[in-house]
Parts: sequence; structure tokens; C-alpha cells
Amino acid sequence: MSERTTLQRKPERAVDDRGAIHAVLDEGLMAHVGLVAGEGGVAHPVVIPMLYARDGDVLYLHGSPASRLLRTAKAGVEVCVTVTLLDALVLARSGLHHSMNYRSVVVMGTATEVTDHETKVAALDRLVEHTIPGRSAQIRPAHDIEVKGTTVLVLPLDQCSMKARAAGPVDDPDDLDEPSWAGLIPVGVAVGEPEPDEGSTGNPVPGHVAFWSRGPGQVNGRAG
Amino acid sequence: MSERTTLQRKPERAVDDRGAIHAVLDEGLMAHVGLVAGEGGVAHPVVIPMLYARDGDVLYLHGSPASRLLRTAKAGVEVCVTVTLLDALVLARSGLHHSMNYRSVVVMGTATEVTDHETKVAALDRLVEHTIPGRSAQIRPAHDIEVKGTTVLVLPLDQCSMKARAAGPVDDPDDLDEPSWAGLIPVGVAVGEPEPDEGSTGNPVPGHVAFWSRGPGQVNGRAG
Repeated sequence: MSERTTLQRKPERAVDDRGAIHAVLDEGLMAHVGLVAGEGGVAHPVVIPMLYARDGDVLYLHGSPASRLLRTAKAGVEVCVTVTLLDALVLARSGLHHSMNYRSVVVMGTATEVTDHETKVAALDRLVEHTIPGRSAQIRPAHDIEVKGTTVLVLPLDQCSMKARAAGPVDDPDDLDEPSWAGLIPVGVAVGEPEPDEGSTGNPVPGHVAFWSRGPGQVNGRAG
Repeated sequence: MSERTTLQRKPERAVDDRGAIHAVLDEGLMAHVGLVAGEGGVAHPVVIPMLYARDGDVLYLHGSPASRLLRTAKAGVEVCVTVTLLDALVLARSGLHHSMNYRSVVVMGTATEVTDHETKVAALDRLVEHTIPGRSAQIRPAHDIEVKGTTVLVLPLDQCSMKARAAGPVDDPDDLDEPSWAGLIPVGVAVGEPEPDEGSTGNPVPGHVAFWSRGPGQVNGRAG
């Protein structure tokens, strides 16, 4: 926790536990990455969804060297990487006490480019493994030209904070006689039946695909 | 589309259709809101998850008047509101062709405070209805003191852009003989069994709770 990431509001929702922060980052599928844009003009914020992966105490981001965000970040602009997991809708007996149960991690800092080839290869493997555990061993290694043609950024996890809400509705005492139903609607990540492409049609579906799921204690549903 | 929101990368993923943009905003549950912070120091980006709602050609945000983000935004700082829906994991035969199918909308602009009481009440209803359609008619109207104690911001939708990917893996031709399974794992929003709070235990679960779901064609699963 740095001064900048110290929570200003609802400090009771702050979670100062490195393990919990890592767990949120590992469970999330996409991050929203913010930076300050506006070359030669008025500074304005830009927020872009990106894949990411944690490896120990760093986060990796990657993309095409032509990506505006990655070019800007390479130059040393600070980024803010936010990962949010939604756990439940909170239905209260008045509109303004409606809320969400969620876990959210905000990482601030300066991302720098990874140039060492071996580190870059390991980071790209982590990016695949983050999304689909067990996948990187099932595909061919990256060609050198692919590694060279990809920008990988690393961001230390030393300026990060977490907020979480995990509770039922908190109603005004005067509202407890209201007839409205109040409680939680749990939400999570639904997983659909894998859809093979043409070349994989009829092939057995490997375990890392068939049993892919996300989130603690989740029972798979159908999506899409 | 303004110059600022014209897509710089992968223009083939741009969607320039107001109806599609509205549909993404209406399906999303949380936005990631970015702004430029750093009073008296170096400007840095901050990205915070927030509830939101669309009403015609504007977005509403709300929160406590003490919220750092809402105080900053009230003063006229530009915001970037990004809503991302994840539709599928894309598994290719090489690591770098792995991808996500998604729909994402980026709204830029200057949010201003809503001060008119009636507009504010309507905006707060929209915020409840956005998350849980049918809910606002089932709860008591907001008290005036609650409306006064809440900051509501409005952001026009005139600077917005959308990107979407909706396709199978695109592999290098040389990789098509690779033995790895390739295709899609569809993902969506899983919905769990509603959990009543103490006062609602044993009461019938109303339709807007029992049948809540999110996403086109989704069949509910279990979450949490």
C-alpha cells in the first residue's frame, strides 16, 4: 500500500492481504488498463480492456508494438490496471441501498518493456496459462519472430490496493417492514460447451478445455 | 465517433452502429471509469469499477458526494467509461493467436452533475432498473434526503466507440496440422440461486429476482 493507493472512501472495504490480492488477479480474465493520453493537447484518460497475467509480484501485459496504449506505456507513462470480479447483486428495500458484492484490485505504477528473450517467452507462456491453465504445454512453442513481434510490458505489484464487499443488504431500520424481497443474486462466470473449429471437429476435447472454469466453488452453466 | 475515439488499431473490429453500442451498455453490469488524478503532482490515471445506466443518449453514474472520483469528475475533469462483455475464450494452435471474443464500448467526455431533483430521481431509478429490470416498481420511492445526499453525474454518449471480436481462432496456415484442440470456450454471466436475507426468508421470490439473467440466449447456471 502506498499513499496513492490508500483508500479514500469506505476504508472498511479495504483488504490489505497480499494473498487475497493475488487471488483476485489470478481469477480475473480481463483487466481494464488506464493511462493518460493527449499528446500535445489536453490530457484525457483512456481505459482499454486487456488480457494480463500475474507472475509472482509482477503483472504482464502484451500486445502489438503498434498498439497506441502499449506505445504510450513503453515511453514511461504511468498506468492503472484494475481487475474486478462481480460476486452478487445486492437487493435492498430501498433503491439507494442496492449494491454489488465484488472484489476489485487496483494496481498503479509505471510499466516497462521486457526485452530479455527468455523472460519474454516465459511471460507469454504465463499470459496463456493465466487464461487457460494447462494450455501452454499443449501448443507449440512461440517462434522467435513471434516473440520479437510482440510487446510485453511488466508492472510491479508494489502499488496495489483491494476493495471487497461480501455481505447481504444493509437496510435502513425504518425499511425492514417494507414488503420487497431483499437478498442476494449470486453471479459468476458461466461456461458454455466448447465449440471446436473445423480442424478440431470430432477430436476428443482435452481436459484443460472440457473442465475449464473460473471462480471458487462454481458449478458450470451454459453460456452463449 | 469523434477523432479522439476513432480506433487506431484493428479497425476491422470497430462497430459503428448506435444500436449495437447501446446494447453493450445495456447488457453490462459494471463500467470501469478512468480519470486523470494527481492534484499538485504528476498526473496519473485512476480506473474504478462503478455501476452505471444508460438513458437514451446519456450515461448516468452515481455515488457518495465524498467519493474522490465523483468529486473530481464534478469539477469538470474528463472521464473515460469502458464497458466490456466477454463472450468466449479463443484457443488457437499457437500461443500468440489465442484471443478473446468480446464486445467493448469506450465512452469519453466530460461528466456534469445532475442537480434537477426530478431528473435525479429518474436517473436513480434508471440505475436500479439497469441492473435489475422490474426492480424500481417493487421498492419504495427514494426519500428527498437520500436524493440530496447522492451525487449523480451525466455523460453524453456523443464520443463513443465500440470494438468487437466474434470469430473462431485464426491460425497460421503452417500450424493447421498441429495436434492441439482449437476452438472457442463460450463464457457469460452465471446466475446463482437467489439468497434471501433474514426478513425475506420464506417469502415468495418475485419474478424479477427469480428470472434475473444477463446476456443474449443465456441459460442460467449456478454461481457462488
